[in-house]
Amino acid sequence: MRILLAQINPTIGDLSGNARKIKEAFREARAQRADIVLFPELCLTGYPPEDFLHLPHFMDAVEDTLQELIQESLGLIAIIGLPRRNPEQTEKKLFNSAAILNHGALVGYYDKMLLPTYDVFDERRFFEPGSSARVWNLWGKRVAITICEDIWQHSALVRYTTYRRDPVMELGAQQPDFVLNLSASPFSVSKISNRLNVCLQAAKSLYCPVLLCNQVGGNDSLIFDGFSFYVDGTGQLLDHAAGFREDLHLIDLSLQLPPKELRIDPVANLHNALVLGLRDYFHKAGFKKACLGLSGGIDSALVACLAAEALGPENVLGVGMPSRFSSGDSLVDARQLAKHLGILYREIPIEGPFQSYLDLLTPQFDGKPFDSTEENLQARTRGMILMALSNKLGYIVLSTGNKSELAMGYATLYGDMCGGLGVISDVPKMQVYALANWINREREIIPWSTIQKPPSAELRANQKDTDSLPEYPIVDAVLEDYVVGYMTPDEIAAKHHYPLELVQDLIKRIHAAEYKRRQSPPGLRVSEKAFSVGRRFPIVQKFV
Amino acid sequence: MRILLAQINPTIGDLSGNARKIKEAFREARAQRADIVLFPELCLTGYPPEDFLHLPHFMDAVEDTLQELIQESLGLIAIIGLPRRNPEQTEKKLFNSAAILNHGALVGYYDKMLLPTYDVFDERRFFEPGSSARVWNLWGKRVAITICEDIWQHSALVRYTTYRRDPVMELGAQQPDFVLNLSASPFSVSKISNRLNVCLQAAKSLYCPVLLCNQVGGNDSLIFDGFSFYVDGTGQLLDHAAGFREDLHLIDLSLQLPPKELRIDPVANLHNALVLGLRDYFHKAGFKKACLGLSGGIDSALVACLAAEALGPENVLGVGMPSRFSSGDSLVDARQLAKHLGILYREIPIEGPFQSYLDLLTPQFDGKPFDSTEENLQARTRGMILMALSNKLGYIVLSTGNKSELAMGYATLYGDMCGGLGVISDVPKMQVYALANWINREREIIPWSTIQKPPSAELRANQKDTDSLPEYPIVDAVLEDYVVGYMTPDEIAAKHHYPLELVQDLIKRIHAAEYKRRQSPPGLRVSEKAFSVGRRFPIVQKFV
Repeated sequence: MRILLAQINPTIGDLSGNARKIKEAFREARAQRADIVLFPELCLTGYPPEDFLHLPHFMDAVEDTLQELIQESLGLIAIIGLPRRNPEQTEKKLFNSAAILNHGALVGYYDKMLLPTYDVFDERRFFEPGSSARVWNLWGKRVAITICEDIWQHSALVRYTTYRRDPVMELGAQQPDFVLNLSASPFSVSKISNRLNVCLQAAKSLYCPVLLCNQVGGNDSLIFDGFSFYVDGTGQLLDHAAGFREDLHLIDLSLQLPPKELRIDPVANLHNALVLGLRDYFHKAGFKKACLGLSGGIDSALVACLAAEALGPENVLGVGMPSRFSSGDSLVDARQLAKHLGILYREIPIEGPFQSYLDLLTPQFDGKPFDSTEENLQARTRGMILMALSNKLGYIVLSTGNKSELAMGYATLYGDMCGGLGVISDVPKMQVYALANWINREREIIPWSTIQKPPSAELRANQKDTDSLPEYPIVDAVLEDYVVGYMTPDEIAAKHHYPLELVQDLIKRIHAAEYKRRQSPPGLRVSEKAFSVGRRFPIVQKFV
Repeated sequence: MRILLAQINPTIGDLSGNARKIKEAFREARAQRADIVLFPELCLTGYPPEDFLHLPHFMDAVEDTLQELIQESLGLIAIIGLPRRNPEQTEKKLFNSAAILNHGALVGYYDKMLLPTYDVFDERRFFEPGSSARVWNLWGKRVAITICEDIWQHSALVRYTTYRRDPVMELGAQQPDFVLNLSASPFSVSKISNRLNVCLQAAKSLYCPVLLCNQVGGNDSLIFDGFSFYVDGTGQLLDHAAGFREDLHLIDLSLQLPPKELRIDPVANLHNALVLGLRDYFHKAGFKKACLGLSGGIDSALVACLAAEALGPENVLGVGMPSRFSSGDSLVDARQLAKHLGILYREIPIEGPFQSYLDLLTPQFDGKPFDSTEENLQARTRGMILMALSNKLGYIVLSTGNKSELAMGYATLYGDMCGGLGVISDVPKMQVYALANWINREREIIPWSTIQKPPSAELRANQKDTDSLPEYPIVDAVLEDYVVGYMTPDEIAAKHHYPLELVQDLIKRIHAAEYKRRQSPPGLRVSEKAFSVGRRFPIVQKFV
């Protein structure tokens, strides 16, 4: 039995483009004499299609496209993820399904049973759960077809939810020869090894191979890493598809393969995920060029590196925008970085508009002293300059704020928060350092002085981030345990031996900055809990 | 039997403040010799508490507060909406419940059966559905307790979902003497009469009175209108609580009351809802003062009127920010409006910073002509001025864009889209006119010239909105049918006899502006489908 894992990168709503990729995989499957070609979850629409699923003409188009694909499925069995209308009158009008095509005919549908409705997932908003786990007779084999979450409950690796059913256990009595899983399982740093463990656990419980085909590519905030898996019935990884790119990967179940190690470098994966997410956000939207402010600091330096890799250095414009508070070293570092990367670089000092605002507004300020108002004016002047370059010259502005700043509200709304995409908005400051060091692992790309100097917004004389914030390792620890881990303030204080007041103060800041984050650009999600997506807290609240 | 409908205005997460309101209602119930006091859905936490429900210390605090309330429930039966931990191991860890308190003891819980998971509602994210509809013996009566959506399925007025159960029908066999319903049913223009019809339908099917207690007040984008209902078993409205304010409203079931008419003035209700939403957004967050740009146009004029009513004119600052493209009439209108309303007014011309940007940036623009870049620079300069006044003087900026502009992307990100709250972001342009005329129904408050002149952004010479957009009645018709009604382009074109290309072009614009709206301030929701909340479409997509 030869199975082609068609790890493709669909674009949301691009039914004809996605169908083209599916047909290419059909051709490849035939060329490689595959018996079955397996696709990712909802690959015809891209995952997640969100409220497009409410549009009747969207579902009509899905059905029409499926008919085309059925016609083209000559000489093979294809298993394709797509939404389908629920023929019964039940709570929700759709199923999240796998269509099973065989040589020009539709064999049937499997409907996903476990519908994640937590974090970034809203599947109960649209879908009715399928009612039964079953095996299908394909080429004389007993083949279990499952979709993503269906096999997760079995490993108890689902958060927020404990489904009352375990499709893996339900399949046990039916003794499948192997299990196929269509997935759209988004990246986070810990996700890849978790996903492998889910496959291994199911394989061991069912004493049979598990093949998981995952979506790859970025869709808005979500990044899908690929890494489709083939594990055997003893719980060994035998093969996997590439990470972070499309891969039509053939698995021959009849071959005796040695166990394969999954090499995971968390920092390299994080880097690759961000590059993929950035590239797909641009290219799927039809944009080529990005600009960003280069402050000489580490955050903008990291984003410039990611953009240069994702879009090509010739498509990236760095803009140095010095003010009266910028140190000369900052400008040197910004120029040096641009040179190392080979990106375009301009310098546009902000003094003119900044002074013009001061002249205009000082009489309005009732004699009050310099404060964050004037700091924000500088950040916003820079934002306006970048947006003007964007409007006039067609660059998309990259926002360079990191997760720690966004958590603390240490960022200027309509200033450094401007942009079409928050590239590192889900990367805490200490991981920013890790990425910067990884980028410099062979040679200096980010100037070492950028990495080594104490972080500063340079919006007043001799400013340091630590004037306003605790040290970043403390911020990041509380961020991780409160936002990602949902730990209580008491638990966090006890775990790290921090004063409870410090923990409570940081948590207060996290909630107080909610109104800023609500207006931030969409950000690439790389953690288990990202601010910009999947975390839903009210702005006005009095609990914290 | 005397029942106090405790139509209160809770704040999200303010457990002690909400408990204080509940205890006040207890006292009032005793003073009025009520037998039962009925509260809104989730009134202890405020609706919707969102991801606070994931925090273990939040649920601990809910449980502690309930214990307090039980102690205080002397001399009466109280039915209080709150989340509770699910004692069984089921899919979700919580129920959306009504706690039934009787004279210092907890009688039991009713758990909501129908959990809306569509539009603004995410109840399946947190809650497990309750399993059974039942009657409770309270003061010798058979009392059915239901929560909000539980009684909606019966009237087939639920969109997106058709629940497989109908708690109203299930109660039929149990012959209740009356039905109590705890609601947190958000306002939209058509919602009040729908909600009344739901009560009437349930009452007629069960041949018994229905009493619905609704939350009142604004929580972020959602506005709850109150209007708690008492209908009899023949399907007549007998009494209702006030709209748009708290009301501890006594119903005596033993009295013979004549039928009461529900007087609904859609425009007045829309006005009142916006005022309430604005006021609560400010006051619950601890803010008093608002500022906004006064362009002399109708949108900012309307928002100034709403703000003056919500916050008091002494707390509202209008700012005229003329440019080289502003007509003299616009400034006259802005001054006149400020005078009529008695709000504070300042004039800050933007020429200085605008020219300063042009001087700085023109050399960067590669000789390209004046275009939307320079228009945006003006709008953003105004945004920066308002934000500076906000930062220095403590005003919260009101964003004045209407729904039609946001639909079309006819607004400047970080410019006129700046602000802490989008006051009329869910009000289409034609409804803006209706509200303005309603405000002027007795005397000129908004200058008639503001209402009568053709809409213009005044960002270039002799600009009119119709240079870039079809007439607003056309925009609004497509907006309503596509965004709210989920109609197909073909259906919309046929309904209005518009060219299909026009409809498709407007729909394209709606999707193309998604990236702007994603960064807009939270807006007050007053329609069945608001952009800023409850409508979830990807930014990058290729279906449209």
